[in-house]
Amino acid sequence: MLPPAQMALPGTSLEVEQQPVMPEGFAAGGLACGIKASGRPDLAVLVVTTDAPASAAATFTRSRMAAAPVRLSQAHLAASRGTPPDQSAQAGQSAHAGFARAIIVTSGSANAATGPEGEADQVEIAAMLAERVDCAPEETLLASTGLIGTRLPLDKVRDGLSRLVPEGLSADEAGLEAAARAIQTTDSRLKTASVSIALPDPDGNARSVTVSGFAKGVGMINPRMATMIAVLATDAAATPVTLAGLLREAVGASFDQLTVDGDTSTNDTVFLLASGASGAAEVRPGSREAAALGEAIAVVCRSLARQQAADGEGATSLITCRVTGAQDLVDARAVARAVVASSLVKAAVHGRDPNWGRVAAAAGAARRPDGQPVALTEAGLAIALCGTHVFEGRVLDFDRAAVRSAMDAPEVLIEVGLGEGQAVAEAFGCDLSEEYVIENAEYTT
Amino acid sequence: MLPPAQMALPGTSLEVEQQPVMPEGFAAGGLACGIKASGRPDLAVLVVTTDAPASAAATFTRSRMAAAPVRLSQAHLAASRGTPPDQSAQAGQSAHAGFARAIIVTSGSANAATGPEGEADQVEIAAMLAERVDCAPEETLLASTGLIGTRLPLDKVRDGLSRLVPEGLSADEAGLEAAARAIQTTDSRLKTASVSIALPDPDGNARSVTVSGFAKGVGMINPRMATMIAVLATDAAATPVTLAGLLREAVGASFDQLTVDGDTSTNDTVFLLASGASGAAEVRPGSREAAALGEAIAVVCRSLARQQAADGEGATSLITCRVTGAQDLVDARAVARAVVASSLVKAAVHGRDPNWGRVAAAAGAARRPDGQPVALTEAGLAIALCGTHVFEGRVLDFDRAAVRSAMDAPEVLIEVGLGEGQAVAEAFGCDLSEEYVIENAEYTT
Repeated sequence: MLPPAQMALPGTSLEVEQQPVMPEGFAAGGLACGIKASGRPDLAVLVVTTDAPASAAATFTRSRMAAAPVRLSQAHLAASRGTPPDQSAQAGQSAHAGFARAIIVTSGSANAATGPEGEADQVEIAAMLAERVDCAPEETLLASTGLIGTRLPLDKVRDGLSRLVPEGLSADEAGLEAAARAIQTTDSRLKTASVSIALPDPDGNARSVTVSGFAKGVGMINPRMATMIAVLATDAAATPVTLAGLLREAVGASFDQLTVDGDTSTNDTVFLLASGASGAAEVRPGSREAAALGEAIAVVCRSLARQQAADGEGATSLITCRVTGAQDLVDARAVARAVVASSLVKAAVHGRDPNWGRVAAAAGAARRPDGQPVALTEAGLAIALCGTHVFEGRVLDFDRAAVRSAMDAPEVLIEVGLGEGQAVAEAFGCDLSEEYVIENAEYTT
Repeated sequence: MLPPAQMALPGTSLEVEQQPVMPEGFAAGGLACGIKASGRPDLAVLVVTTDAPASAAATFTRSRMAAAPVRLSQAHLAASRGTPPDQSAQAGQSAHAGFARAIIVTSGSANAATGPEGEADQVEIAAMLAERVDCAPEETLLASTGLIGTRLPLDKVRDGLSRLVPEGLSADEAGLEAAARAIQTTDSRLKTASVSIALPDPDGNARSVTVSGFAKGVGMINPRMATMIAVLATDAAATPVTLAGLLREAVGASFDQLTVDGDTSTNDTVFLLASGASGAAEVRPGSREAAALGEAIAVVCRSLARQQAADGEGATSLITCRVTGAQDLVDARAVARAVVASSLVKAAVHGRDPNWGRVAAAAGAARRPDGQPVALTEAGLAIALCGTHVFEGRVLDFDRAAVRSAMDAPEVLIEVGLGEGQAVAEAFGCDLSEEYVIENAEYTT
């Protein structure tokens, strides 16, 4: 019922390097400017070093309490592209598109629920960055993460920026790593990913194109814009609208399918910049080159999302749920998300307990985003834990001890077959541990 | 922004007795028949002792993996009312209605995901019960709770029924308590509630009418049919359809607003039987009497839901979220549910951490059941923790130590004002503790 061939998913043929490679046309860096009392790095900047600004695409949290940097970035993208801000804000699920010369990410304070003062602070930070990189404020993008309801210390950010830009930036992987380190909060591991593909230049010669990204996020991560920050950069050439389409696809299959604790934050942000500095020709929507670039973006997003899930607060295992046989992609994604989001499934995985009934219950209760139930029946349902089939319309005999021992691994695979159609999807989560509770019971103090 | 008057909610003027009172026309009991290996009580029965069957109403899980007893009860209600089963199954959100003479609840095995064999088992149990109480199988209602994927031991259930019905049943509160005890799984406390009201008899004289209920449920409890079992009985007289309308209203404001861990089970069931044995006249839909009976049913449901939330696995505090100023009831309920369902809010309450930013984030991310965002703005949002205003469109100064100390209580009240309209709602949940994880990491073994 779950033949291995059905488990193969799109976007997995490319080799992803966890060691980052800096694409051409960028420099990056990070340092500690004093937002965090701990003295750890808390200020990251990525700048575009080409003459023209980079094409930019972004997706954001859909929270009604979106933080000041989210709202300002949306306005900047709309302005740089020539679209009135309010029109862009109504675009809803689609990715935002525009042009950008620099991204700043601060860590330690979310600048969310900070009222008009927080909004003014963020405008001021955009002006500081614009001055350092000599561009218009509308060509900056901004993200922040940390405690909600606390304001950013502008003097510390100004001082940090003056030390970081441009002297502290690097055009090689050290810059990416420094930036990745500076956006972390409770992350225990650096999250970076790179992939290289070949795209033709205008003369038809192959050029090496790199897509790289770094991300943070360990708690407050939930589907339909996972709560986290990710920054991707590529030296491919593409218009903002082309880029936005590719990013939307990639995010839908990766960050939107990621949950750590079911909480959606106020600051979710994914940025993607394309410098065009590889010399490859501009990719056209719908072309083979666009598909290749889209796949590269997708595998980087997927790698980052899996790294985020595996590093969930207190997590000991990455949980991957693969759904096959769904009537459509919406159902497939909904069921996969429901399984990895289930507290009871997460607790069972933590205890290495092959309690497949909780998987069945989570699948049965799954809802499409519009609240409609998914198509599945008990008779058509199939479940496998770590490769062992445990349910196929009825309870199967299986070696509990063997499955229990297979579950004691860094990644636990849960496969769910619906028997309703051909659609497949996957979702990523982590187990629920006592440490998650301990870590989150005392956060502000 | 959150005047105390706005906090008053409907359905709170009646006094609820946690000590149960048996309504006229019923007998109940429970015992250990051996489903549970522990030897604890696991078989409960409620029978109607009047000549005519009782009017019956019920709400069930909306899971696509609904257990065999759920599906059979739906078919029985439809048959006893003369409605074809498949038509009733399509009724969706509305309560089911029919007639019944007896309810059986088994604990220890959910009889969910057990295939055609489990379905046949449940039919057999209905036949056993019908034989013991001398009624048609279609006049029985059935519920079960426990491990998914395990079959019920029919011989043990048959033996238990022969000892329990009728000799082991009692028409006073001891019977209710025995039944309440026998439906428990990991509950640490008995969950019962009763309320009495006066309704006129056909001659206009006041009769005392009782509404009583008992419930179980500590994990796998989530909004939009909280995962749990509750059985209500009243000696009021009402048609099945009238009763179903009143139950639907009551469940919408209570069990549907309850979440323990975000998981919806395969076995959620609420039954309500009306024997008419009080001598009160049949209540007519839309009448003052119907409103009074509806209020009594609602306060019993609310009391049971609050007891369930307070007894969530590992819970140390009941969390009540009251939302005011919503544009409509759907928004109000959605925001209240989102706040009590947030893992981060739950963990913060566990740590007595006045981290109101997580309340703001949960409210901002709330979605209506159809996936649409709720109406709220940062400027209009107000939050109070245990009576202390902490956010009103901007961060307020407050005494953190005092709020922290106020949060160290059996009930933590979170008030959220939206400033969009007049609708109010509440939701119930509990804190997330290390014990929840420990209890749920090893359940099947």
